[in-house]
Amino acid sequence: MNPTDLRGLLDQVGQGNLSPDEAVKRLRDLPFENLGHTRVDHHRTLRNGFPEVIYGEGKTADQVVEITRSLYGKNQTVIVTRTGEGQPEALREAFSGAVHHPEARMVVIGNSKPGAKVGCVAVLCGGTSDIPVAEEAAVAAEALGSRVERAFDVGIAGLPRLLAELDSLRQANVIIAVAGMEGALPSVVAGLVEAPVIAVPTSVGYGTSMSGLTALFAMLNSCADGLSVVNIDNGFGAGYQAHLINRMASKK
Amino acid sequence: MNPTDLRGLLDQVGQGNLSPDEAVKRLRDLPFENLGHTRVDHHRTLRNGFPEVIYGEGKTADQVVEITRSLYGKNQTVIVTRTGEGQPEALREAFSGAVHHPEARMVVIGNSKPGAKVGCVAVLCGGTSDIPVAEEAAVAAEALGSRVERAFDVGIAGLPRLLAELDSLRQANVIIAVAGMEGALPSVVAGLVEAPVIAVPTSVGYGTSMSGLTALFAMLNSCADGLSVVNIDNGFGAGYQAHLINRMASKK
Amino acid sequence: MNPTDLRGLLDQVGQGNLSPDEAVKRLRDLPFENLGHTRVDHHRTLRNGFPEVIYGEGKTADQVVEITRSLYGKNQTVIVTRTGEGQPEALREAFSGAVHHPEARMVVIGNSKPGAKVGCVAVLCGGTSDIPVAEEAAVAAEALGSRVERAFDVGIAGLPRLLAELDSLRQANVIIAVAGMEGALPSVVAGLVEAPVIAVPTSVGYGTSMSGLTALFAMLNSCADGLSVVNIDNGFGAGYQAHLINRMASKK
Amino acid sequence: MNPTDLRGLLDQVGQGNLSPDEAVKRLRDLPFENLGHTRVDHHRTLRNGFPEVIYGEGKTADQVVEITRSLYGKNQTVIVTRTGEGQPEALREAFSGAVHHPEARMVVIGNSKPGAKVGCVAVLCGGTSDIPVAEEAAVAAEALGSRVERAFDVGIAGLPRLLAELDSLRQANVIIAVAGMEGALPSVVAGLVEAPVIAVPTSVGYGTSMSGLTALFAMLNSCADGLSVVNIDNGFGAGYQAHLINRMASKK
Amino acid sequence: MNPTDLRGLLDQVGQGNLSPDEAVKRLRDLPFENLGHTRVDHHRTLRNGFPEVIYGEGKTADQVVEITRSLYGKNQTVIVTRTGEGQPEALREAFSGAVHHPEARMVVIGNSKPGAKVGCVAVLCGGTSDIPVAEEAAVAAEALGSRVERAFDVGIAGLPRLLAELDSLRQANVIIAVAGMEGALPSVVAGLVEAPVIAVPTSVGYGTSMSGLTALFAMLNSCADGLSVVNIDNGFGAGYQAHLINRMASKK
Amino acid sequence: MNPTDLRGLLDQVGQGNLSPDEAVKRLRDLPFENLGHTRVDHHRTLRNGFPEVIYGEGKTADQVVEITRSLYGKNQTVIVTRTGEGQPEALREAFSGAVHHPEARMVVIGNSKPGAKVGCVAVLCGGTSDIPVAEEAAVAAEALGSRVERAFDVGIAGLPRLLAELDSLRQANVIIAVAGMEGALPSVVAGLVEAPVIAVPTSVGYGTSMSGLTALFAMLNSCADGLSVVNIDNGFGAGYQAHLINRMASKK
Amino acid sequence: MNPTDLRGLLDQVGQGNLSPDEAVKRLRDLPFENLGHTRVDHHRTLRNGFPEVIYGEGKTADQVVEITRSLYGKNQTVIVTRTGEGQPEALREAFSGAVHHPEARMVVIGNSKPGAKVGCVAVLCGGTSDIPVAEEAAVAAEALGSRVERAFDVGIAGLPRLLAELDSLRQANVIIAVAGMEGALPSVVAGLVEAPVIAVPTSVGYGTSMSGLTALFAMLNSCADGLSVVNIDNGFGAGYQAHLINRMASKK
Amino acid sequence: MNPTDLRGLLDQVGQGNLSPDEAVKRLRDLPFENLGHTRVDHHRTLRNGFPEVIYGEGKTADQVVEITRSLYGKNQTVIVTRTGEGQPEALREAFSGAVHHPEARMVVIGNSKPGAKVGCVAVLCGGTSDIPVAEEAAVAAEALGSRVERAFDVGIAGLPRLLAELDSLRQANVIIAVAGMEGALPSVVAGLVEAPVIAVPTSVGYGTSMSGLTALFAMLNSCADGLSVVNIDNGFGAGYQAHLINRMASKK
Repeated sequence: MNPTDLRGLLDQVGQGNLSPDEAVKRLRDLPFENLGHTRVDHHRTLRNGFPEVIYGEGKTADQVVEITRSLYGKNQTVIVTRTGEGQPEALREAFSGAVHHPEARMVVIGNSKPGAKVGCVAVLCGGTSDIPVAEEAAVAAEALGSRVERAFDVGIAGLPRLLAELDSLRQANVIIAVAGMEGALPSVVAGLVEAPVIAVPTSVGYGTSMSGLTALFAMLNSCADGLSVVNIDNGFGAGYQAHLINRMASKK
Repeated sequence: MNPTDLRGLLDQVGQGNLSPDEAVKRLRDLPFENLGHTRVDHHRTLRNGFPEVIYGEGKTADQVVEITRSLYGKNQTVIVTRTGEGQPEALREAFSGAVHHPEARMVVIGNSKPGAKVGCVAVLCGGTSDIPVAEEAAVAAEALGSRVERAFDVGIAGLPRLLAELDSLRQANVIIAVAGMEGALPSVVAGLVEAPVIAVPTSVGYGTSMSGLTALFAMLNSCADGLSVVNIDNGFGAGYQAHLINRMASKK
Repeated sequence: MNPTDLRGLLDQVGQGNLSPDEAVKRLRDLPFENLGHTRVDHHRTLRNGFPEVIYGEGKTADQVVEITRSLYGKNQTVIVTRTGEGQPEALREAFSGAVHHPEARMVVIGNSKPGAKVGCVAVLCGGTSDIPVAEEAAVAAEALGSRVERAFDVGIAGLPRLLAELDSLRQANVIIAVAGMEGALPSVVAGLVEAPVIAVPTSVGYGTSMSGLTALFAMLNSCADGLSVVNIDNGFGAGYQAHLINRMASKK
Repeated sequence: MNPTDLRGLLDQVGQGNLSPDEAVKRLRDLPFENLGHTRVDHHRTLRNGFPEVIYGEGKTADQVVEITRSLYGKNQTVIVTRTGEGQPEALREAFSGAVHHPEARMVVIGNSKPGAKVGCVAVLCGGTSDIPVAEEAAVAAEALGSRVERAFDVGIAGLPRLLAELDSLRQANVIIAVAGMEGALPSVVAGLVEAPVIAVPTSVGYGTSMSGLTALFAMLNSCADGLSVVNIDNGFGAGYQAHLINRMASKK
Repeated sequence: MNPTDLRGLLDQVGQGNLSPDEAVKRLRDLPFENLGHTRVDHHRTLRNGFPEVIYGEGKTADQVVEITRSLYGKNQTVIVTRTGEGQPEALREAFSGAVHHPEARMVVIGNSKPGAKVGCVAVLCGGTSDIPVAEEAAVAAEALGSRVERAFDVGIAGLPRLLAELDSLRQANVIIAVAGMEGALPSVVAGLVEAPVIAVPTSVGYGTSMSGLTALFAMLNSCADGLSVVNIDNGFGAGYQAHLINRMASKK
Repeated sequence: MNPTDLRGLLDQVGQGNLSPDEAVKRLRDLPFENLGHTRVDHHRTLRNGFPEVIYGEGKTADQVVEITRSLYGKNQTVIVTRTGEGQPEALREAFSGAVHHPEARMVVIGNSKPGAKVGCVAVLCGGTSDIPVAEEAAVAAEALGSRVERAFDVGIAGLPRLLAELDSLRQANVIIAVAGMEGALPSVVAGLVEAPVIAVPTSVGYGTSMSGLTALFAMLNSCADGLSVVNIDNGFGAGYQAHLINRMASKK
Repeated sequence: MNPTDLRGLLDQVGQGNLSPDEAVKRLRDLPFENLGHTRVDHHRTLRNGFPEVIYGEGKTADQVVEITRSLYGKNQTVIVTRTGEGQPEALREAFSGAVHHPEARMVVIGNSKPGAKVGCVAVLCGGTSDIPVAEEAAVAAEALGSRVERAFDVGIAGLPRLLAELDSLRQANVIIAVAGMEGALPSVVAGLVEAPVIAVPTSVGYGTSMSGLTALFAMLNSCADGLSVVNIDNGFGAGYQAHLINRMASKK
Repeated sequence: MNPTDLRGLLDQVGQGNLSPDEAVKRLRDLPFENLGHTRVDHHRTLRNGFPEVIYGEGKTADQVVEITRSLYGKNQTVIVTRTGEGQPEALREAFSGAVHHPEARMVVIGNSKPGAKVGCVAVLCGGTSDIPVAEEAAVAAEALGSRVERAFDVGIAGLPRLLAELDSLRQANVIIAVAGMEGALPSVVAGLVEAPVIAVPTSVGYGTSMSGLTALFAMLNSCADGLSVVNIDNGFGAGYQAHLINRMASKK
């Protein structure tokens, strides 16, 4: 599907080094491995710059281990998110290098050496209850290779707590702002900094928080510029995109 | 319906000064005057402390003038809100003292002398487009007898604009904070002051502003305390309640 | 952030009594204490007139005790709302003065002497199922220093029950009206009294009660004036704002 | 489809008075007349006790006249609701007995002699803006043969206006209560009377009135018993059902 | 609140048989008895024609018994709906005549002799899962004094099942049609009969059934006339109103 | 109700072979058998081409066995969907030929011989979590008599996985595309094939997946043609309709 | 992208008949022609079995003519749906064979000879106001090559009108059932026939019709099997899929 | 508010170069200029890296010119978005360098020389109707200083059109993907590229497009990683954030 690869294949066919039948077959077989319940996409590292991430929710511990094994065999870092019951234990038993981050509900397996992190991603959250989502974002960005600065419980009802972090926020290439309830934190932050802000609404709140929809909609309606938004409670998605941006900003 | 009055009536009946039949009749006739399309409630000043307000929308200019005349004949200040086409003109023609506030879409008729205002109600709004609703609140509170301080276009995306008003905000007995879009202004304000804050969501915004529902829900979910909320675009309701509070605070 | 304080600091700097570096540091350090998971805001009493309230839901008993200790050390009344499992017990063990209000799901710690209450806040509710929310409002206002009058199960389907309370309602500086289902109680009350009414929708009901949204929307759409609204089931928020208003009305 | 008729047909077939083919044909032809755009259902009077009603909205004046002619030829009273532009004029030109009720947006054609009305249907509405819907209900019930008592602008914000009507309300066999905004009128009424109440929400209001959904939901959630509800602004539907009930109550 | 009673009281006062003070007191004391958590409304039988119904959900078994005792002492039939855990047992222990209807989740206490039922209320439901709601309606109407005919599992996907009941349906004074999912049963029924139809949406279904909202909205939008609707799963409300109508139709 | 049958009955009546009374009775008795809680519709095979399907959810194991017995006695294949606790076991005990498909939550009883399947229905799904719904569709189509090809975990985030299945997809007479989250799979598929596509949204996802509404709405809004949609998680409905189409396409 | 074509191209490259560069270019250039605002997809006939359809809404008359010209030059039938102002006139001026269907808001250009239609698609609608959507479905199916039978105004409130069409409905290979308001028509139809039913909700109705959402949800929740649904008012989509099914059923 | 500036000010005060009073004044006066209706924020370039953008909607042409003049006097590029009636003309009359982009509804004033653009932002859209929003994004990014590549009408229903752009997409530092209806384009793109993707839902569609909410929710639920989302139709917001990212990636 990748035009560049397609060109390469065609060149080989034209040079007689590859039969047309074989070429069609390769195009089919290359990208993934079919485990029955799941098609593991080994091609993704080339295509997207990072291996497929395993979403743990709704999978059995055995399925998660099997998929991890298929990916890990190719010598990559593997990330498992939203780990369900028994999954962290099963993964740690199967892979000696597996690290469990309970608050973030993630397991990371592979050679994520702390010293090698690049750039800076700042992760903020409004209240104590938003920490699990903020941790998911932070651990994700770290596992992918970014340096992360955390500042939790800096919600807008006590503005001085946030303003005291401004100096540090201004060092970051990208800021992840996590908030539930009225979801105003990313708007206030985006009005004070130059870096792009990725807003993460959380399902924290009750009544008209509408399980996070209010925070989501408020963030999308921000009167500040430079802000984009991910799904409710999607810390991983924010950490992933923040890393893509931070990595670019950190290349010389 | 008013127990006090009921007691009075019963006393008169018991003293033989009033026949039971007459008493029943009075209870019925006192409170309002039936214009056919509208029942004008003259009793309300006693019951609620302020005369009925005329909601202009959906009424003809003639109906509004007729209701105003019925109320005004009892020597009260009359307020007409959400004035529709032709209503301000008709009212100014019919009543020499009628003052039209076009931005607030209101007409006020009566003896609202500027010098006599009491206390202080602060009215803030986030952006230029919120001004009509903020003006409705401000004019309402003034017409009812409160002194009003306005600070418009102090939205949270440019926090310094708001912070510069803090000294002045802290003089107010009650603060009305009007905002559309993400609706975060009242939360930020309530986190910085001691006075009660009445939040007014506006229908300003697009997409996920949901015609003001997002601002409304965000305000109701505020992580700050001391805040209550009125209907979307209901500047009058905020001004009315703010006056009730300010009046109490201003009594010695 | 507080301009007055800022002025004070600047004066000291100008007088050579404070170095600029120290001034910046103080601005940062003054307002709060970082417990890791939570930033306790000691400055809030100066800024808002009352200490931060601890929202128990989603916190561990240990976290709640730790935050309470940090606040209580400064000699203030501490309020914990929406207490979760084990929290009341842990708090009562840690603080001898802790009083648990089980129906209101609150714990109050400190010198809230019953005799010292000021003014009058009336708390009404429509039905038996609304009592927990009404109690949360009542206990909050009492803990903050207001005298409270309760009248429960006075819903509009049996109007005489409400009308019998009118005399007593008219003594209050502010009325909190709590109702679920169709949420009409605050509208009926606001049409009969002069005081501001704070409406609290509850999630009581089924089907089209939409978990309290219908009561909320009905209250916001009230055809009566003088009414504002807080979030669904937010008894504390209503009690807090009612106290702010009652305190002002009770000052001589 | 009507078992009784089916039985009659089968009897005739069994007696040799009707051929099976003819029987099938009659079953098909009896019930309606196909005008191309509309199938006029002449059978309905037998089946439902009243002729089909013509919903004017979205039809041309010519179509409405054509359908009316088809129905009227069978000597029935014809009702046209939600009349659109030009329809009332066209109907009055085509049928000398056509009476136009502009506020109700209806045209009634036929022998609806005022003297012959039976029983009593009470029609209430909360505010001036609800009158068109209330009139639709009232005119419908009258056209179908019920006596109607109207009491408009008796909303709950001014309770005495409603209570003054109680004597008269208690004469009615069925009460139609029309209200927009918070939609509390039917609940208050149902708590005070013995007759069944048909509640009609209107789209009057703004913001959280949600185009009438809030009033609808509030009515469905009424804490009073004896109440059922029709669609938003569906005055006709309320008038129709009220007549069915009133007619039964009025039969000796 | 009852003008007739008011008149009676006033007459007595006017005749000197009652002091004004006593009159005010009576007006207050007559209607209800305050149990603390609940105000029992003894006056309701006079006002509404039937005693207050006890909604079991959210009450303790003890509260329910206490309220029942207060009502039952006045020699009335008492109905408890939505009985929660332990309530049926507690009621049957406390009142020898208590009858438990488990499918309907109701307990009826008093002299509801089967032979004395009047008129006819037909209760239909679309599917097996709708039976609990249909039973609630049927038991309610029976407890109040109506004769009830049941026809369950007659949904529109198998139209012949419904049509076979037509003869019997046409004997009823009022029809209760209960349906979940697409909620079309009441519309089809209302198109085939002359009697008023009370539609009850149920929360049966999944996905776009939206917990019953779809059935509710479909019923309110019925293209058939003569139909009104109660809240989702509100079998009792339908049975209550059906009885009011059937009773009127059955009076000679 | 079936005109053809009706005609046949009438012919017999006309020929004197059947009395009218008997004809009416047959019409009533033929279609279904009343088990009290359920009316089993034996006529359906004639009318719809396939026997009634038993929806297990909300029924007891005994009820399901009883209904199955009533249907199975007529020598048909019986399908039970959404089997609840204990139902599969009870059915397998009662019917030796019962086959349980746990992932699809279905039990199939009868002579569904694998060799006899006709045509081809392709069943795709986006992710591992969508498999239960996809299996429900696949097992349903197979039980009804269609040959089924499955391709699971071919979501659009890894397009090559889907494109590798194109050859095989193009053999199918009809394609069922199952997807949760953003629900884009059916749109992408419909843009690449000639066969009709039946889209099945699933409730897989979180936050703005809105329990499957987002996938549903996205599928209905597809910019590709040739696509129709069934309810959220309704695998059976898709399998049923796909079989109807495939059977027609497979007839010579 | 089409594996078959890809194979052909690769064969040619392997045989030296095509250079790799040229092959890549062809893959890119074949499928579409870039008009700047629109990419016309000529490849679609091969891929999907029918040319791209032009959606008129939001395009200028000139754009529509230009796209039509690009498609028509390849000798195909061209369909323009939802024609906006001036488009029908412009198309008829530019293409002599253009036929305008005003009720369906469509223009069809090409050789759609009436005699050549295959099979049978039945198109039903509930009421007069649903006709435009039903016509869009009917004209679409006809333009694509299907024979169409129409039966309009057969809504379920007058069931005999629908039942009289049963014989004719049973001739159809596929049935399109169009309905607004409560949207029950497709459910009733699907319960009576063997053919697959495509349901089309319309935005006809008011209040709780929710602009067609209620009909849509009701159709998706049908208690009848064999039914799938398209977007609100999407007559074209229904006609298109119906044709795909009818064509397969009509092939020998 | 800016700690850096605050530090600078404090240094000056400490050095006796600035009086405390003057320092407070500067902090207040620096940031903005009060035009009455609007507070122009000159400080923003320092704080956010780009001047305030003027949102034209709901402002008069005169207000827009006045605000532009205030900003432009400081020698900056000024951007006006969502220009309303008369605004483009007024701006071009007032500022000779004003360039009007009618499709994007924007006016750009200042020295945006085409040659100086950096990096690469790719802007895609699904269909012809999405072009205005895509243009808003493209013009915004260009005006801020980014090089932009456009590829319009590459929706997923004709996948080859999109795949043909892959080579070019892979050159971009960030991709803006604009789509209405089912909103699947960004998900498909994010699965094929390495760069971060900013998704922009549009309000294009009908029925279940829910004015763009469906596309928005689908994008937030993407099964692909590396994607964030802005408000419905918010092309400017996407262009702004894309520029922030592209600028960082382009710095050496």
